[in-house]
Amino acid sequence: MEFDVIRRFFLPLSHGLARDSADLAIGDDGALITPPPNHQLVVVTDTLVAGVHFPLATSAYDIGWKALAVNLSDLAAMGAQPAFYSLALTLPQVDQAWLTDFSQGLADCAQPYRLLLIGGDTTRGPLTVTVTAQGWVPHGQALLRSGAQVGDCVYVSEWMGEAGLGLSLALAEQIPTNVGETCALARLNRPVARVALGIGLRGLATSAIDISDGLLADLTHVLTASKVGATLTTDLMPVSETVKSWAAEQPLKPLTAGDDYELCFTAPPDQQTRIEQLADQLNLKITRIGEVTLQPGLVIDGEKINPSKLGFDHFKQR
Amino acid sequence: MEFDVIRRFFLPLSHGLARDSADLAIGDDGALITPPPNHQLVVVTDTLVAGVHFPLATSAYDIGWKALAVNLSDLAAMGAQPAFYSLALTLPQVDQAWLTDFSQGLADCAQPYRLLLIGGDTTRGPLTVTVTAQGWVPHGQALLRSGAQVGDCVYVSEWMGEAGLGLSLALAEQIPTNVGETCALARLNRPVARVALGIGLRGLATSAIDISDGLLADLTHVLTASKVGATLTTDLMPVSETVKSWAAEQPLKPLTAGDDYELCFTAPPDQQTRIEQLADQLNLKITRIGEVTLQPGLVIDGEKINPSKLGFDHFKQR
Repeated sequence: MEFDVIRRFFLPLSHGLARDSADLAIGDDGALITPPPNHQLVVVTDTLVAGVHFPLATSAYDIGWKALAVNLSDLAAMGAQPAFYSLALTLPQVDQAWLTDFSQGLADCAQPYRLLLIGGDTTRGPLTVTVTAQGWVPHGQALLRSGAQVGDCVYVSEWMGEAGLGLSLALAEQIPTNVGETCALARLNRPVARVALGIGLRGLATSAIDISDGLLADLTHVLTASKVGATLTTDLMPVSETVKSWAAEQPLKPLTAGDDYELCFTAPPDQQTRIEQLADQLNLKITRIGEVTLQPGLVIDGEKINPSKLGFDHFKQR
Repeated sequence: MEFDVIRRFFLPLSHGLARDSADLAIGDDGALITPPPNHQLVVVTDTLVAGVHFPLATSAYDIGWKALAVNLSDLAAMGAQPAFYSLALTLPQVDQAWLTDFSQGLADCAQPYRLLLIGGDTTRGPLTVTVTAQGWVPHGQALLRSGAQVGDCVYVSEWMGEAGLGLSLALAEQIPTNVGETCALARLNRPVARVALGIGLRGLATSAIDISDGLLADLTHVLTASKVGATLTTDLMPVSETVKSWAAEQPLKPLTAGDDYELCFTAPPDQQTRIEQLADQLNLKITRIGEVTLQPGLVIDGEKINPSKLGFDHFKQR
């Protein structure tokens, strides 16, 4: 009985799935998908746990939105076109108002990509949302972590540290007092994955990653996978005045706070013009923040740093 | 730090992933998979919550085994060849002994199918395991719920009610006193998905489903999707003597208790010999329990029943 109620909320999110007559929507033991010719499948999974990945007071709408957005961000970092997702939702009880808002958050986040829900599971327990999202990328064109080359420029999309500021406001249950704080809260609760940027970077970027764990920790993953280093300049970092004053005592905080769903990528210097064109076309701020070096490790303003000491760790209780 | 520990347990489970040089194992933002030509992808998701889907005293090994097996059972019901899976694990704390056993349970369940872990997420919180498993089926050959035809025979694999008896023993913390009870506990804790049966039924069965919610509830899904009915005979049901004496006061209990990961399928009467051959070949008990009728609904021993009143509901607290 309760299951039927829940299904009613999620069935509309699978509407339009059966593009191929042999494909199936929710309702069989599994979903059936026909791969587009000459593409590779990209699969990503992220879990949000109440009180760990979002403050307990977060709205159901924002939880639904964010559960999908964080996965879309991983697809974006691979240069994939999002295609469908599964939802595993664990709930303490069936609350129709909550489910209405939650499913609307999912629907609104999915809508620009025509991303369809293909199935999942609903169980009773402490609030936990796991999304597995899948996308397609033309064979061999995925953006990997391992392709950064010495001499490449390092770029980042939009602004750093916004979600970190947003989280500190949310945890303090502080009403935003200016537009900068309002933006920061929006970046925390309704991040927008850089899907079009990821797709636009196919054949242009040599590596890409999303910076959900913080720029320094995630860039380090790229450097390790690519067996190179990088040197960054803090003056170049896209950090808003509001975030700067929040981080006045710890200037690296915007680069380590995490939960920013932006892309960090590398590209050869001769692609600078194409990257500027792409930024214009997508109406997205893209900033060159440093370059890839032969010497392994991360150097900021001439000083070598150890990002494992600075990274964002979801497994610590906040 | 803790994440690295966890990763160490799961990385071996992805060993051998990169069959295609363009495919990627754990370690990028997502996994990259090259679809085999002319196949459809089948995607299934199931969540296990401690205390809801398994007794709190269940061993870590059995939790790992079962989390994968219940998903393989859904793939089997579609006739898919299992290929890879993602794991979202929420844990109250990092316990190395627990993780050792849990990952061994996953590994042993995956081994016969060479099923590979392609990624996932590990978070802190109450113990919850979500697996999304994926498989391939030749285009147009998936077993669906919607294909049952009037006059088809209804079949079921192996024994009914075993897991129900097993659960009642486990909840009572009762040591098994005979081989029947030992088997029942094994069916509860280490179910074996009928993958080879599902693949063997391609082009043979007209519909299939796994009976994890209980035979009556799940067969009803097939009948509804196929717009037909069925008549069953309890005397034909494969129920062991041990389960019969457990269910003496409620003879339908073995057909409704749920958690049996067997397949129920339909096939035309002229396929009887081929089905017997398949059963022999797989060394699997397959029993004909009734037939598909024009009249909608489910009739047992001449009496119409309402399976929605009997079904297994994971969302109730046990």
